[in-house]
Amino acid sequence: MSRSFRHVPGSICAPRGFKCAAIFCDIKELGTGKGSEKGRKNDLALIVSDVPAAVSGMFTSNQVCAAPVKISARRAARRFVRAIVVNSGNANACTGKQGVADAERMTALAAKALRKLDRFKRSSFARRQGTEMAAEDVLVCSTGRIGVPMPAKKVERGIRECAQLLARSARNARQVAEAIMTTDTRRKEIAIEFKIGRSTAYIGGVCKGAGMIQPGMATMLAFITSDVAIESDLLKRSLRVAVEQSFNRITVDGDMSTNDSVIMLANGFARNSKFEIRDSRFQEALNDVCLELAKMIVRDGEGASRFVRLGVRGARSIGEAEAAARSIANSSLVRASWCGGDPNWGRILCALGYSNARVDEAVVDIGYANPGAREIIFAFRRGRPTNIALKRLAKITAAPEFDLHVDLHLGSGEFTLYASDLTEDYVALNKGDVNDPITLGG
Amino acid sequence: MSRSFRHVPGSICAPRGFKCAAIFCDIKELGTGKGSEKGRKNDLALIVSDVPAAVSGMFTSNQVCAAPVKISARRAARRFVRAIVVNSGNANACTGKQGVADAERMTALAAKALRKLDRFKRSSFARRQGTEMAAEDVLVCSTGRIGVPMPAKKVERGIRECAQLLARSARNARQVAEAIMTTDTRRKEIAIEFKIGRSTAYIGGVCKGAGMIQPGMATMLAFITSDVAIESDLLKRSLRVAVEQSFNRITVDGDMSTNDSVIMLANGFARNSKFEIRDSRFQEALNDVCLELAKMIVRDGEGASRFVRLGVRGARSIGEAEAAARSIANSSLVRASWCGGDPNWGRILCALGYSNARVDEAVVDIGYANPGAREIIFAFRRGRPTNIALKRLAKITAAPEFDLHVDLHLGSGEFTLYASDLTEDYVALNKGDVNDPITLGG
Repeated sequence: MSRSFRHVPGSICAPRGFKCAAIFCDIKELGTGKGSEKGRKNDLALIVSDVPAAVSGMFTSNQVCAAPVKISARRAARRFVRAIVVNSGNANACTGKQGVADAERMTALAAKALRKLDRFKRSSFARRQGTEMAAEDVLVCSTGRIGVPMPAKKVERGIRECAQLLARSARNARQVAEAIMTTDTRRKEIAIEFKIGRSTAYIGGVCKGAGMIQPGMATMLAFITSDVAIESDLLKRSLRVAVEQSFNRITVDGDMSTNDSVIMLANGFARNSKFEIRDSRFQEALNDVCLELAKMIVRDGEGASRFVRLGVRGARSIGEAEAAARSIANSSLVRASWCGGDPNWGRILCALGYSNARVDEAVVDIGYANPGAREIIFAFRRGRPTNIALKRLAKITAAPEFDLHVDLHLGSGEFTLYASDLTEDYVALNKGDVNDPITLGG
Repeated sequence: MSRSFRHVPGSICAPRGFKCAAIFCDIKELGTGKGSEKGRKNDLALIVSDVPAAVSGMFTSNQVCAAPVKISARRAARRFVRAIVVNSGNANACTGKQGVADAERMTALAAKALRKLDRFKRSSFARRQGTEMAAEDVLVCSTGRIGVPMPAKKVERGIRECAQLLARSARNARQVAEAIMTTDTRRKEIAIEFKIGRSTAYIGGVCKGAGMIQPGMATMLAFITSDVAIESDLLKRSLRVAVEQSFNRITVDGDMSTNDSVIMLANGFARNSKFEIRDSRFQEALNDVCLELAKMIVRDGEGASRFVRLGVRGARSIGEAEAAARSIANSSLVRASWCGGDPNWGRILCALGYSNARVDEAVVDIGYANPGAREIIFAFRRGRPTNIALKRLAKITAAPEFDLHVDLHLGSGEFTLYASDLTEDYVALNKGDVNDPITLGG
């Protein structure tokens, strides 16, 4: 299948009409004494559209959600917004009413600082249209420690400085990708170009997330920009489709965060017709952006050493296929065996048995394959171990990436999940420290 | 509250009229060459009642269950049995029809070997009653590798030798407790003495289990003997009550095994009246035996460094209290923080939020206490972080055992769960080895 898009360099500034910048304002409060240099990474960023952009947002379904999620979810239901303010180092979660007030204030401060910018640039859209940016036009996202109040003064100064930086230098997507990282070990960014009618359009994205990753969205923030012209309703529908097939199909540790957010802005600079956007090319391109970003998260899973594409088929329903896949991919024992490159299909069968999917041991197939390979090497077929040498299976599972195929032979339900392994490094990263309690959370 | 029972030395041979023995027959097929000495531990055992004993059994609810579970579950539904044959090193799980035939054969071989023993002992009950032990009178349990056929010849010789040993030396409970161990690091055994009317009665138990531990019963085998005289129906009901409050309230890694079995035999040697057994003392004693054995499993959890008693109250129902407790205790992030002694209550709140229990962040309490202490130090109260110094909380969570209290303030549902932490050692133990694929399973 030939693709109707191509990957290009850059990320959220590849689409026209977007600016972004990031700065350091010590949100983690590491101080500025000796040894604090190491922790001195950018921790606050602004992403701004030159004109009101159609908006779509999807957020954690955790009942305990962070203050910025509460605010952004409400504002993402509107048709247009202008900007996103985001910080790492503090999740502003489990912070009560003060947390909500702090998050609100961040958007008000961002709007105020960006209004100045709009005025300064006489040609700006807002100026021309006579609409000034309000707090309501700004979304907010946070990631980092849970249960610690936001350092209000630092954030205030940070937002002001970040807006000033934006005025001087507008295309700092790489810095933004870095500023949102917490335990991530690498930047996660992508941009693609595609045609709509006679127009060329772009979609760009950055995301973060490495631990507390599980369905209903990962502990992750993803920001996607596009210059397509699209109705807000259609954008919301399109993003939902793309997230369902990407961010909702990954798992690192089965923990669903309090802060997960995927936010997309589309500002119309591509000047395509809003009729033409309805062909499948935009959705395909958006699906690709989301899936590639989601896979980057799994590959950078905390302590992860393997990337497993787990396909379950033959379930009685899609729901049961998903239940079976999640039961396997969230089993500590299965994940530990992946870490050792051990093709321990017995544990897989065991995890299938206690899943919420109907399983008949006598007809189950379990097989392994090299990434994307058609040939499946079966370990267990129709309820019986095959005669395949374990060494042959281990050759596949010893690689950093492999495919795991499960067929329940009870129906036509299918589900694909992208998962990583459980390693000693994961525990070491997350076990915290009695002498420095409270580690990263949301 | 004064207890109506006392702990005494020994285990399954403390009750009168029970014999047991264990031998090594190389079920793991380690061979007998150089270096095999280390793996040379007893791996097959027989537990026999001198007379038909009332029987009760509870088994894994995993849809994929091992062959011996299929057979023993059927036989445990009968009123009386005589013996249990058990092996470690091979779980006889995912072994298809051959596995069922192998498990059946183990019981037939055990019955045959023990019949000889009955005949040899002229005074034996069976001889007097004219009833000879049949395969149907024997239950079978296996634990160890999944998906590997049982080594038939070795098992046959092993059962014969074990019965011969039993004829010479009848009280080898310690050896049995060792023979059933897999990744366990210590024997798990208990015996208690209590009064029924004017009779003195005993309950003794051994169990194994360290990984693949989760509700609906752990990867564990537990064998409980008693010399009380009790109707089979009442024994079945009593064991269900005791297991519900013990083995079903522990979790190590959230994995439910294919082989979990708790089997109890009661042979009547205490000569109590079957009327008197209905007072609460028998149930109390049995509850204690089961709970102590269950706690031993959690304390010996694979790689575990902490033992956490997690009490959830204030849920809308008992079911929701259980869902909340399991969500916390099975969260990789929460368990990793326990490993570091980190009182990371943010992750607890996060795990509550994605549980199947209704949670209102604004009213939740989370607190820690020293084991059994009345004073709870709250970290989060009524939806807000308390001002307690994290160092003070860390003092509690740094200990090898502590209590975690959660109150949802939404109803009267309560549930207590005993859990352990996630450590680097757990991963190291379970990650297997590409060069020696297939590790322990059921």
